[in-house]
Amino acid sequence: MRTTEQTGARQSTLRSSNLALVLRTVCAADGPLSRADVAARTGTTRATAARLVDELVAGGLLDEGERLAPPRRGRPATPLLPGARIGALGLQVDAGLLAARVLDLRGRAVAEHVEDADLVGSDPARTLARLGGLTTALLDGPAGELRLAGAGLALPGLVDGEVLLRAPNLGWSDVPAVDLLAAHLPGGLRPVLGNEADLAARTVAEAAPGRPGPLRDFLYVSGQIGIGGAAVLGGRVLTGSAGWAGEVGHVCVDPDGPTCRCGSTGCLEQYAGRHALLAAAGLPRGTPPAEVVARAGDADVQRALDAAAGALGVALAGVLNVLDLPAVVLGGHLAALAEPLRPRLEELLGRRVLSARWRRPVVEAVPGTPAAGATGAALRALDGVLDDPVRWVP
Amino acid sequence: MRTTEQTGARQSTLRSSNLALVLRTVCAADGPLSRADVAARTGTTRATAARLVDELVAGGLLDEGERLAPPRRGRPATPLLPGARIGALGLQVDAGLLAARVLDLRGRAVAEHVEDADLVGSDPARTLARLGGLTTALLDGPAGELRLAGAGLALPGLVDGEVLLRAPNLGWSDVPAVDLLAAHLPGGLRPVLGNEADLAARTVAEAAPGRPGPLRDFLYVSGQIGIGGAAVLGGRVLTGSAGWAGEVGHVCVDPDGPTCRCGSTGCLEQYAGRHALLAAAGLPRGTPPAEVVARAGDADVQRALDAAAGALGVALAGVLNVLDLPAVVLGGHLAALAEPLRPRLEELLGRRVLSARWRRPVVEAVPGTPAAGATGAALRALDGVLDDPVRWVP
Repeated sequence: MRTTEQTGARQSTLRSSNLALVLRTVCAADGPLSRADVAARTGTTRATAARLVDELVAGGLLDEGERLAPPRRGRPATPLLPGARIGALGLQVDAGLLAARVLDLRGRAVAEHVEDADLVGSDPARTLARLGGLTTALLDGPAGELRLAGAGLALPGLVDGEVLLRAPNLGWSDVPAVDLLAAHLPGGLRPVLGNEADLAARTVAEAAPGRPGPLRDFLYVSGQIGIGGAAVLGGRVLTGSAGWAGEVGHVCVDPDGPTCRCGSTGCLEQYAGRHALLAAAGLPRGTPPAEVVARAGDADVQRALDAAAGALGVALAGVLNVLDLPAVVLGGHLAALAEPLRPRLEELLGRRVLSARWRRPVVEAVPGTPAAGATGAALRALDGVLDDPVRWVP
Repeated sequence: MRTTEQTGARQSTLRSSNLALVLRTVCAADGPLSRADVAARTGTTRATAARLVDELVAGGLLDEGERLAPPRRGRPATPLLPGARIGALGLQVDAGLLAARVLDLRGRAVAEHVEDADLVGSDPARTLARLGGLTTALLDGPAGELRLAGAGLALPGLVDGEVLLRAPNLGWSDVPAVDLLAAHLPGGLRPVLGNEADLAARTVAEAAPGRPGPLRDFLYVSGQIGIGGAAVLGGRVLTGSAGWAGEVGHVCVDPDGPTCRCGSTGCLEQYAGRHALLAAAGLPRGTPPAEVVARAGDADVQRALDAAAGALGVALAGVLNVLDLPAVVLGGHLAALAEPLRPRLEELLGRRVLSARWRRPVVEAVPGTPAAGATGAALRALDGVLDDPVRWVP
């Protein structure tokens, strides 16, 4: 008996890993593949590849496009693409916005609702109910026709399983976020909770589900009201021992500096966080980054940008010395401010990073996708499909 | 033809991975195992386990101890232990010492020579020739009877392949260290080059070859003339994208602080490195840590220790915020100074680490093995035996 069961388990695992290999191969390709391409790229026979593809097509994980005339003689091949009828839901609460976004397996946002909101000091239960309401409305539309493979929720703080431990800029502590949200979502959806910056960093490391992004090793710095971050090594987000890694906003720039919401002093976000930077520049809180750039010649604004670039340089040089990453990727308002920040930031990284003489750190900015955390949460949920597609085929 | 070759390759790989599994099982055990124990722990038949054990015994990778009377009836079992006639050589140059140490596969130092030396600003070629000379003398003794599976060299700086790029406290730059040393080593030995702190951290993560140490997730802080470091996650040293990770000594504590040998300002090692601490305490450079502890009541010494603890608290809190590690392990002179440093350091970590409310960081000290880098270099060379024992069996 035992032997039979073990063999059964092994066969099921083999089928699952073969399906996963074929699915990842199609997702990672630059364009549509034929069944013959899949066979060649996975090193299997055409018959095996065709059988696996058929299973994935039946489950909606792969779509067949229109047959194209072959480049040379032979039968026309059917192009294969990642499924457009299966997707995942990504949700986000930030101090300045609420977001719900549905991505399909091709990584396209097929529906979204992003809404500005001032959620500093908000009530967690009411805020999550509001997010549940707008998500329900979104799924009542055309996006509801997609098969949802999962959902994720990005919050700007430390998370532990389904609980948010602390989000200083929301003023939230010990919030059973998944329970509170799930009560307001349709169809028993239960999102997986993650840290906003960890999830946003995925949108740089992953161009689409299963597809490597432009950078594989970098420090992502998420400019929000505060500052979050994530280190990505070999395309994988470094989560640390309990999932709390990446809090670059609370690296100390000057122990005698201003008091931070976290209770410490001189944290990076007290110089380069959105609110801190606008306050130092003498501009109102809602001022968009583009206006800050436009006013970069004003003395106060110039001084605030210099202080932010200096603080970023000192703090991020320390992080690069410890983590050995070749690039810093600025996100959120810091991406929009990259041009005025870059000269001083690059100069400091070049001077303070021990290895800079051999490899000078690069500063990149990712164009401002609002609510990148929501996109990352959906990408993570889609990873579940790529890792174990057998659950989705008939 | 291709099929036969592939099958051949697979069988060889299978044999290698089976031998590795058996060897690691014996190395990881708390005490000697019998062939039956090995069969049970690896999930193979007794016949297969016995055959693999015999191959490893023939290669000297396992030793058979004296047969013990069995606890119950049955034949006496032969106890198996990691081989004592196979070992590796670990070498180290630090600003204050030269070291050569031979470890056997049980992790015991079977021979060593550690010699104090002032190597600040020394000539790399002459220093490495001197290390080669003392290594040759060491291997002319009883340690020369061991079969050497490899060698490693620990240097306190950034390494790139076989070249030392920069070791600020030795004053060395762009040194072809392995070439220079190998010319003075017997029998074509060619050590693998590594960073001192990365290798020393292994001695905490690994109790002996193949055997987990007491901690699996920690930040190792190596107190030398300067300060090195290594982050260990899940028992593995985080090397970063080019092997340059862990430079905690150059995390900035105060941008307006003193100039560092690296060219930057306010680096941690300018407060807590051995030379900096002694200078601040008004003590001569050679003062041993025990004397610093004994004089902790003197005002100057107290002030220097406070400044060092404060700097460690600010810098390491930043590192823990980014890496999410539950423990800091102090090594070198910082281990010897742990008692006076700990109260202020723990207080600062508790206040400045964002997750400390849920898991307060712990500060440990590893008793001062002189030249832990040499031990780590030998452990890494022995890893090669554990990973691929097939090369060592007849």
